[in-house]
Amino acid sequence: MSQATTGAAPATAPYAATDRTVPTRSRERASYDREVVHAILDEAYVCHLGFVRDGAPVVLPTLYGRVGERLYVHGSTGSRPLRAAGQTDPGLPVCLTVTHVDGLVLARSAFHHSINYRSVVVHGIAYQVTDPEEKSAALDALVDHVVPGRAADSRPGDAKELAATAVLRLDLAEVSAKIRTGGPNDEPEDLTLPYWTGVVPLTRGYGAPIPADDLDPAVALPEYLSAL
Amino acid sequence: MSQATTGAAPATAPYAATDRTVPTRSRERASYDREVVHAILDEAYVCHLGFVRDGAPVVLPTLYGRVGERLYVHGSTGSRPLRAAGQTDPGLPVCLTVTHVDGLVLARSAFHHSINYRSVVVHGIAYQVTDPEEKSAALDALVDHVVPGRAADSRPGDAKELAATAVLRLDLAEVSAKIRTGGPNDEPEDLTLPYWTGVVPLTRGYGAPIPADDLDPAVALPEYLSAL
Repeated sequence: MSQATTGAAPATAPYAATDRTVPTRSRERASYDREVVHAILDEAYVCHLGFVRDGAPVVLPTLYGRVGERLYVHGSTGSRPLRAAGQTDPGLPVCLTVTHVDGLVLARSAFHHSINYRSVVVHGIAYQVTDPEEKSAALDALVDHVVPGRAADSRPGDAKELAATAVLRLDLAEVSAKIRTGGPNDEPEDLTLPYWTGVVPLTRGYGAPIPADDLDPAVALPEYLSAL
Repeated sequence: MSQATTGAAPATAPYAATDRTVPTRSRERASYDREVVHAILDEAYVCHLGFVRDGAPVVLPTLYGRVGERLYVHGSTGSRPLRAAGQTDPGLPVCLTVTHVDGLVLARSAFHHSINYRSVVVHGIAYQVTDPEEKSAALDALVDHVVPGRAADSRPGDAKELAATAVLRLDLAEVSAKIRTGGPNDEPEDLTLPYWTGVVPLTRGYGAPIPADDLDPAVALPEYLSAL
């Protein structure tokens, strides 16, 4: 994705680890590599956005987009986190988490059952985007996150729609990935127990696109969809 | 699942809506039906657990299990949320969210792009489980949540493993589901625009089980796995 709107050359150094991004458990699963983090973020469709309201945590699933080292989420200007970000000076503390579940890990012992997964956790302050150009680029990124290439093949938002949509920006600064791969880690004394052990992979696929009832049959399925 | 450990007859009335569980947007997508909520919870593998640490939100993916109207999450006694719940009196305020992404909704306008999804959001206080029987049943539920039937076909936790594992309980009380289905909702004036519009379904499947390298070839694949 373009780095143009970040106004900086692409960063290549790993993200700096902080107290919040060093896990207390299984530290060997943590990664601060930018490409690893970007790949996990780009592959998912929704993130889970956490914020604090009246002292209690709230976690909501939401679409997001990435432009370089910035993430964007959007919503109605009337939605709770968007209102909260607008009301909070200097921004809304959030935690944005994305997780892929890749496999079920069946150990011989109940204790060592696990999941193969790839997750990214981003801590930071979300700010309302007020610059019209950045907002427009963020909304394109949100649509292209659903299907790459789609923003250019749909009607852009008009002034009324843009005004009704609030966009939050979260910089990728305090961020880490955590990844578990491979088979079970049974205890040596359990290796001869008579239970099947291994991994059941989970896969994700696409069904055949379902045209809207009111789609003009003359409109062909675009290549970016037939290629999925 | 068994209601035995809850000590109460199965509840059938919908969950009571509260200020936190009535969405500010798209209220017609909300459901408080227990069967709807249970089905969404039982189908997912990980939840996103939110809590507050040092005034900031934290959202972590984690396994969970359900026993009737109670959810359980577990972790090392050294992990952050588990420690926090143990230290907090009278418990740890959490928000536990589960989301399925069912389809990509491509509207003619960028503004109306969306996702078909099913989510459950649970607000409440998580408590450390101290009763040994409840803890054991919770850990069975966590393993059976990964693969139903697996808890009975693996080595149960021993005293040392149980002592190293903390379990949090969260009652299903302040809870709602939110569901979007169907096609795009384009504006009437956009219906003749020349963009393909409809839904791309997302599917989840299972790959062939991968036996652990050290699995005795004489151990057959159990039926609960071949049936996936």
